[in-house]
Amino acid sequence: MKRKLRDLAVFGGPPTFPNSKPVGQLYSPPIKKVLSSVFCAYQSRRLTNDGPLVQKLEKKLADFHRVSDAVAVTNAGTGISLVLRAIAKGRKGEVILPGFSFRGLSHFVVWAGLKPRFVDVDEKSHSLNIAKTKEAINSRTIAILAVSKCHSFGNRDELCEIAKSLGVPLVFDSVYAMGATYRGEPAGRGGIAEVFSLHATKLINGFEGGYITTCDLNLSTYLRRARNFYLGDDNSKDLAIFGTNAKLNEIHAAMALASLTHVKKLIAKNKKRFLYYSSKLAPFRGINLLVSPQPKLESMSHVLNILEVSPQSPFTRDQLVTLLRPEGTNVTPYYSPPLSRAPMNPKCVKKSRLPVCEKLAQKFIQLPSGNYMRENDIDRLAMLLCFLWTNAREINLMLKKYYD
Amino acid sequence: MKRKLRDLAVFGGPPTFPNSKPVGQLYSPPIKKVLSSVFCAYQSRRLTNDGPLVQKLEKKLADFHRVSDAVAVTNAGTGISLVLRAIAKGRKGEVILPGFSFRGLSHFVVWAGLKPRFVDVDEKSHSLNIAKTKEAINSRTIAILAVSKCHSFGNRDELCEIAKSLGVPLVFDSVYAMGATYRGEPAGRGGIAEVFSLHATKLINGFEGGYITTCDLNLSTYLRRARNFYLGDDNSKDLAIFGTNAKLNEIHAAMALASLTHVKKLIAKNKKRFLYYSSKLAPFRGINLLVSPQPKLESMSHVLNILEVSPQSPFTRDQLVTLLRPEGTNVTPYYSPPLSRAPMNPKCVKKSRLPVCEKLAQKFIQLPSGNYMRENDIDRLAMLLCFLWTNAREINLMLKKYYD
Repeated sequence: MKRKLRDLAVFGGPPTFPNSKPVGQLYSPPIKKVLSSVFCAYQSRRLTNDGPLVQKLEKKLADFHRVSDAVAVTNAGTGISLVLRAIAKGRKGEVILPGFSFRGLSHFVVWAGLKPRFVDVDEKSHSLNIAKTKEAINSRTIAILAVSKCHSFGNRDELCEIAKSLGVPLVFDSVYAMGATYRGEPAGRGGIAEVFSLHATKLINGFEGGYITTCDLNLSTYLRRARNFYLGDDNSKDLAIFGTNAKLNEIHAAMALASLTHVKKLIAKNKKRFLYYSSKLAPFRGINLLVSPQPKLESMSHVLNILEVSPQSPFTRDQLVTLLRPEGTNVTPYYSPPLSRAPMNPKCVKKSRLPVCEKLAQKFIQLPSGNYMRENDIDRLAMLLCFLWTNAREINLMLKKYYD
Repeated sequence: MKRKLRDLAVFGGPPTFPNSKPVGQLYSPPIKKVLSSVFCAYQSRRLTNDGPLVQKLEKKLADFHRVSDAVAVTNAGTGISLVLRAIAKGRKGEVILPGFSFRGLSHFVVWAGLKPRFVDVDEKSHSLNIAKTKEAINSRTIAILAVSKCHSFGNRDELCEIAKSLGVPLVFDSVYAMGATYRGEPAGRGGIAEVFSLHATKLINGFEGGYITTCDLNLSTYLRRARNFYLGDDNSKDLAIFGTNAKLNEIHAAMALASLTHVKKLIAKNKKRFLYYSSKLAPFRGINLLVSPQPKLESMSHVLNILEVSPQSPFTRDQLVTLLRPEGTNVTPYYSPPLSRAPMNPKCVKKSRLPVCEKLAQKFIQLPSGNYMRENDIDRLAMLLCFLWTNAREINLMLKKYYD
């Protein structure tokens, strides 16, 4: 409980949360079950290379997403590179992707031997702007890499339509869309493939890991071989397309399977947490949680809780981050700077001005979320905000003194 | 015990080994110790992202290899790509590598955005031929990717010398050289960096995984950031070079640490197994285990046992594979076909004739090896060979009938 300015952690006071509050799901399934699966895998001498737990996981994920196939890989980024390699088939060219996304995303385009081309996004859904995407498509376009955001699928229907009509393969980075539905259908069936993550911060925790959902049998056959160096059986000697080591092993599969058992409960809890968070943040001028712009079409899994900071707020976005981080929260600016302004390898990345991305990159904060953020933690965060909002003028003056 | 031709598994008899005998170390450290480390990591909420077990593993590996730094990554292949990316610094160009090696190797050059250029090897050491390497170096050469073979370091001194005198960065793929020494020094200190594997088939079993040893502080700093998307701290916004997700997590580190404790015992057992194998195979005309061509300079860790099939053998290499595989052995031709003849993506790979590689690719078999191959298993394999050698003429006739 803060009573005076010096009680704020940024000015030397004790943090609101002595155990730092993370951003992300960080669900821990019952450890004993996981370790017993690992023990069995170990005893049976099948540790990796398409083992029975990986196969079981893939089957369950395919059912969950209502697709014909799910292919497990070491992580989502490598999954994106492999899908793009499969589409490119050795050609050079460009991949269209939104300029407002995870800053590692364009790296995976470059690892696939392709050039990222950033396109501006829609202000509400943060997904690729349709008109700008159409403009950006040219003879060098290999694929569109769309991103399903944590708060919205965006204009998925239109994207699928232009991709189909123009014959451009469409891939979705859906690492935050697991458990979300669009028109009642689970994410996973969009475009040629959707790529998901099993990193601990995502809905399903496999320690690390990722998977690709697809209904294209040629693609899943390629991916299964590509994740194992594109080795065939000993007689085939087929190395026509190349691969990498992207095998998910049995340990990760055991962990992911244990998490998957509780996925419905997790989503329900996330929704409850999101509503509680919203109600507690409602009193504060100039801030609100980012919500779906099309709530009738889509239902999200709320792994992240994104705070939008408007000009009515007594603090800027960056001031709020400065104030909240020392309080034991891992808050971070959300997708800032935009990808188009990140000083990436200039030989690989086409730069252009993206006014909506620029604007969005100034507005948002990732709040603490997931299983370590319980209702009483949200209460404490709201009390902290109450102190900040009621003493805004003095705090701003003191911040100025500290940082000028 | 085989008494008549029909007893051979290839002709329908029961296999010599009902539980298939693998090729590779496949050491299993005491599982309870591993699971208890995993449990602690889990309780402490540090699963990945440079956790304490990864740090401990890196320290122990650096000590083991007597280098200033070891950087753990998801697997050796990704490690090779990252090191090559670091050297290339965005430039396009070629990487020189031996045409006689693991067939996935050149893929990792292509993932790094570079072109593999295959060079012929020395007949005894199977490592890059010095004269041919010199010839192959040109203005587009970015690096030499040499391979430390399981039976020999090859002409390491000369390679280091020409790399230094010509100013070409030298990297070693040393996945089979862990635990081996050259002039009394452990592998790990050659060139700019050496890359090792923690796959279950290698000396140290981390389920999966890899690491890079280097004495170049700039390189290890780059690699640590590159394995985590090249993210910096929140204020640096430094994305000048790009990265990927190549983080080794705590689970793999726990497994590798448990294996590392017993590394000296493992090497001693491998040496004993190799000597026993050699003595048991000595009676058979036309076959022998591949040995180091420079035993005074180098001591190997014998993770693999490679059989050389000479023209004096009553069976060709491929006939022997055909006969031995159905007997419950995972024998495979060793590095066959040579990389230069593999039908790789032609836009990426420069093809040329490599007569020594071509010749070597016809000669060798990977025999069952490692912890699942005990002395009595070697005895049984020797008895099988005895039956094959004493009935060679009849078996060859029957094979001909079967396969013609």
